[in-house]
Amino acid sequence: MERSDYVFTLDLQVRDYECDFQGIVNNANYQHYLEHARNSFLRTMGMDVVEMSRRKINMVVTRVELNYRHPLTSGERFWVGVNLRRFSRLRIAFHQDIFRSSDNLRILDGVVIGTAVGEHGRPIRVPEFERLLME
Amino acid sequence: MERSDYVFTLDLQVRDYECDFQGIVNNANYQHYLEHARNSFLRTMGMDVVEMSRRKINMVVTRVELNYRHPLTSGERFWVGVNLRRFSRLRIAFHQDIFRSSDNLRILDGVVIGTAVGEHGRPIRVPEFERLLME
Amino acid sequence: MERSDYVFTLDLQVRDYECDFQGIVNNANYQHYLEHARNSFLRTMGMDVVEMSRRKINMVVTRVELNYRHPLTSGERFWVGVNLRRFSRLRIAFHQDIFRSSDNLRILDGVVIGTAVGEHGRPIRVPEFERLLME
Amino acid sequence: MERSDYVFTLDLQVRDYECDFQGIVNNANYQHYLEHARNSFLRTMGMDVVEMSRRKINMVVTRVELNYRHPLTSGERFWVGVNLRRFSRLRIAFHQDIFRSSDNLRILDGVVIGTAVGEHGRPIRVPEFERLLME
Repeated sequence: MERSDYVFTLDLQVRDYECDFQGIVNNANYQHYLEHARNSFLRTMGMDVVEMSRRKINMVVTRVELNYRHPLTSGERFWVGVNLRRFSRLRIAFHQDIFRSSDNLRILDGVVIGTAVGEHGRPIRVPEFERLLME
Repeated sequence: MERSDYVFTLDLQVRDYECDFQGIVNNANYQHYLEHARNSFLRTMGMDVVEMSRRKINMVVTRVELNYRHPLTSGERFWVGVNLRRFSRLRIAFHQDIFRSSDNLRILDGVVIGTAVGEHGRPIRVPEFERLLME
Repeated sequence: MERSDYVFTLDLQVRDYECDFQGIVNNANYQHYLEHARNSFLRTMGMDVVEMSRRKINMVVTRVELNYRHPLTSGERFWVGVNLRRFSRLRIAFHQDIFRSSDNLRILDGVVIGTAVGEHGRPIRVPEFERLLME
Repeated sequence: MERSDYVFTLDLQVRDYECDFQGIVNNANYQHYLEHARNSFLRTMGMDVVEMSRRKINMVVTRVELNYRHPLTSGERFWVGVNLRRFSRLRIAFHQDIFRSSDNLRILDGVVIGTAVGEHGRPIRVPEFERLLME
């Protein structure tokens, strides 16, 4: 996979505090990287998840599958690639992979299933999402 | 599933700072809960992952599959159930589920695949693990 | 200082993921411990900061002074002591110290100045706070 | 204060997961921003704190004083300014301030006292530090 294989990519760098006692990025922090890339992508498409949350529409994750292939360590630069497709009537699948910038080594590949939920916690159709899936 | 269906359970409570702008526990924090339950279990079995790390044996996660069923919010008490079985010659599968304590509502169910890696980052056999899988 | 010198104490234990590449609790996490102890104390006094936030009253910190005396490491048990006094007309000073449970070694002492702010971000008087300072 | 008043500045942007249930950056995360700016600065000066940690020399914080003046919210860009001076024979004072990029509003000002400690946890002189203070 190359950058051009993704509809969106984000460049980041590991911060020291993201590494744990093993000296490598803690597993949970990769989910932060993926969330940050996903929300950054959605903002470029005109969907601000924080602003939507104020209107009681929350973007929630219902399932993640992550394969950890190589660890990242302090100071390493990496990029996150994002693709998406419809997963079901109300769900989107984000295909998200992480690569080390220096050599494009694949660090992680993952699928994150998400949906929008309304005030009562039930999945709802949101126009922004529909538009996103048509493009 | 009930507590007695697991070889290990851990009782925890959501801390305010673990919730994000949506007022619910951030996705990544559930991985912290699972890691904490897993490491607590391993300690009761005589495996201290921090101490092992000093001996250059690191416990790493190679894959997670997590289904997020209901969100947890500030102050809620919950418990994490842990089971395990051999996944391959060098890999263990931890089956880990999270339940809200007040009504045993299932919050999350997941499978975390882990292995021990040696100094050069390659999976290795460790006696502690073998013992664990025999019990 | 002993437990009886504080109006509130909370017992906690270091989780592995709270330690950084140095193998000790990362500095920022002590602020999480202090916040958790403060909010737990306020809840016992009938002030739920999350519920207040929904009413557009936010508890904010305006200043912290923290002395880090000894590091905590993975698995160590500790307790946080909380005292409070009026700092100014609209501000409260929380005196918060952390001790290792095994030997009561002082790990950290600190002062956290906080206030309640209303919808427009300006400090306001809240009855709950006034009541707290009278007790 | 302007950027030219600091020996080092770092540009960052708030990530959604750094905000808590109040919709603003959680207090503890500002310490992460300061640590990241400090370590980035030290790296530009040839001091890699992670690499030093492997040689059993740990950079530790002994005291922080932070004034929180305005909150940052999701997506806001900000910069961290860093200055330093000798605080005592073995301690360095880092003066670190955070400004919102859009209008240079001061978000936080702080002083972080740090020292290097050796294998037995006692402050030690390290040549890198001495060189730093001479420049």
